[in-house]
Amino acid sequence: LLTTSTSTLGHPVGIHLAFIPAVSQHPHHNQSYGSTRAFSTTPVNRMRDFFPAKETENIRETPPAWPHHGYTEAEMLAVVPAHRKPTTWGDVFAWKFMRFCRWGMDFCTGMKNDQKVDKSNPTTATHSIKPLTESQWMIRFLFLESIAGVPGMVAGMLRHLHSLRRLKRDNGWIETLLEESYNERMHLLTFMKMCEPGWFMKLMILGAQGVYFNGMVLSYLISPKITHRFVGYLEEEAVHTYTMAIKQIDDGHLPKWSSPDFVVPDIAVKYWHMPEDKRTMRDLIMYIRADEACHRGVNHTLSNLDQKEDPNPFVSDYKGGRAPPRPALKGQGYERTEVL
Amino acid sequence: LLTTSTSTLGHPVGIHLAFIPAVSQHPHHNQSYGSTRAFSTTPVNRMRDFFPAKETENIRETPPAWPHHGYTEAEMLAVVPAHRKPTTWGDVFAWKFMRFCRWGMDFCTGMKNDQKVDKSNPTTATHSIKPLTESQWMIRFLFLESIAGVPGMVAGMLRHLHSLRRLKRDNGWIETLLEESYNERMHLLTFMKMCEPGWFMKLMILGAQGVYFNGMVLSYLISPKITHRFVGYLEEEAVHTYTMAIKQIDDGHLPKWSSPDFVVPDIAVKYWHMPEDKRTMRDLIMYIRADEACHRGVNHTLSNLDQKEDPNPFVSDYKGGRAPPRPALKGQGYERTEVL
Ligand SMILES: [Fe+2]
Ligand SMILES: [Fe+2]
Ligand SMILES: [Fe+2]
Ligand SMILES: [Fe+2]
Repeated sequence: LLTTSTSTLGHPVGIHLAFIPAVSQHPHHNQSYGSTRAFSTTPVNRMRDFFPAKETENIRETPPAWPHHGYTEAEMLAVVPAHRKPTTWGDVFAWKFMRFCRWGMDFCTGMKNDQKVDKSNPTTATHSIKPLTESQWMIRFLFLESIAGVPGMVAGMLRHLHSLRRLKRDNGWIETLLEESYNERMHLLTFMKMCEPGWFMKLMILGAQGVYFNGMVLSYLISPKITHRFVGYLEEEAVHTYTMAIKQIDDGHLPKWSSPDFVVPDIAVKYWHMPEDKRTMRDLIMYIRADEACHRGVNHTLSNLDQKEDPNPFVSDYKGGRAPPRPALKGQGYERTEVL
Repeated sequence: LLTTSTSTLGHPVGIHLAFIPAVSQHPHHNQSYGSTRAFSTTPVNRMRDFFPAKETENIRETPPAWPHHGYTEAEMLAVVPAHRKPTTWGDVFAWKFMRFCRWGMDFCTGMKNDQKVDKSNPTTATHSIKPLTESQWMIRFLFLESIAGVPGMVAGMLRHLHSLRRLKRDNGWIETLLEESYNERMHLLTFMKMCEPGWFMKLMILGAQGVYFNGMVLSYLISPKITHRFVGYLEEEAVHTYTMAIKQIDDGHLPKWSSPDFVVPDIAVKYWHMPEDKRTMRDLIMYIRADEACHRGVNHTLSNLDQKEDPNPFVSDYKGGRAPPRPALKGQGYERTEVL
């Protein structure tokens, strides 16, 4: 295996094999495609549908639970990496802990020093000496997204249980939190359509969820405020990661994704309602980045609110026809007085 | 306290004090109302709003996360107590265990033997020698609803985590499960508007959640199929309880709820879009019972499906314009072949 294979993404397989094994290892899946294009990223979802949408005798399809709200193109273009300066002790803790997680992630994706950005602006600097490879990016995306679906679900569940046992209203937070976790799961399933992780990466995801889920529960029980700040910082990382990937596509470093052969998975086209002429990997990452910017703004804002008493501004009706806040372009989140 | 008080619901206070203390114990809350109507159930939500909807400088209101779909009057009237005969070993276990829970609940609400129905048809027989009192009903409702919001959230969360770590689609189940738990929480908050439980009942709810939540997690991890069946049986109980209450209102046994002074809380009017001439306690219970009938049909159906592979029929698009199944009138749930 180690000597004969080529990864899905067209790279000679070394350590990455365990993360993303070549689909061409399964020749019986390869029939309809032919073996001449082993270097393209396109074929994977054509060759083998890892989780086909269920169609039964009577059911045609099962539409997404939370339809995507959509962004204007201007909004998507306006998203930029941002950083909210930690001010309280809790902020500092969340930020430092995120630095540690980022270090671990860089290590796991095998990032070289010349692939890294300026250490003093880790979520806003986008210049690095060398680009990452497509497969390094893919590992990063998959790992990030399998983690990212946890906090929203944990927070939503704990607020639900709290409301039940304390017999108190929730004031609209649960909805946004659960929707966030659904959105993250759609990111994950989209990337999953492009490559199937190997057993090692699957094991890592399993282990990470075990640790991360329990950590999140504990953390949210101790301080929802700090936890939302931490998620805000996690989303700063996500926006940064996707911005870097877009930049490297633009700089021509990721040819497999720029190839006209590249096809965005169907699940993504449907979920984001991607127009027919906007279905490149770059377009997809633009959508996903806008989602992450949204989570970033939401979580930084929620962290600024009174966790028990304040309503969720993002689903509230404002007086005098004022529109609800748009978190995607508010990198630092809204201050409490701006939205209540 | 024990000797001088009268409960909210107009009953001399004995053991029930601990469950539902009299609001008139707090004379400073009683000002605007006057003490002459201590026997009415109306005043509570006028005198003291336990959890007022949040209104801030800018925010007018926070609408419900999942707007209620609504029922036709015909549908609500057609709901009847039903029972699905246990067939598999798992069904039998779920049913027997539910018998035990029902016994515990009857015990806790201080049900006398002549208030009980025929033991051989516990979820369909509605005749009892003596009615329950309003306050007995209220304890039953509150306890039932504080428990009922747990399984949907647990199931939704576990399926979400499963999808993330197994990198598999969920096929639409999560949505319905979370919506169910939201709907149950709205039931609870509605009843909470009518009376505030005392410290003893609050403690019971706290303890019950601790036990029940963990039990549900474990049970769902071991067998989601049996757990959905158990919830199906729980919902049989809920439909039965509300049907009994409606019957006793109709038989004139619950005068405080039939009184023209009785006002349904605002939260309920908004959530179910109750028409102006349909806002009695009986109307409210009709809505809630229809919800429970819906959960009953959904959970019995889900238990009949392949937990890993089958799509959720209730949110699927059917071929040939066929309408999705309506679970409220399907007391035994749909068999797998009927909906897939
Ligand atoms: Fe994401
Ligand atoms: Fe995110
Ligand atoms: Fe309920
Ligand atoms: Fe229910």
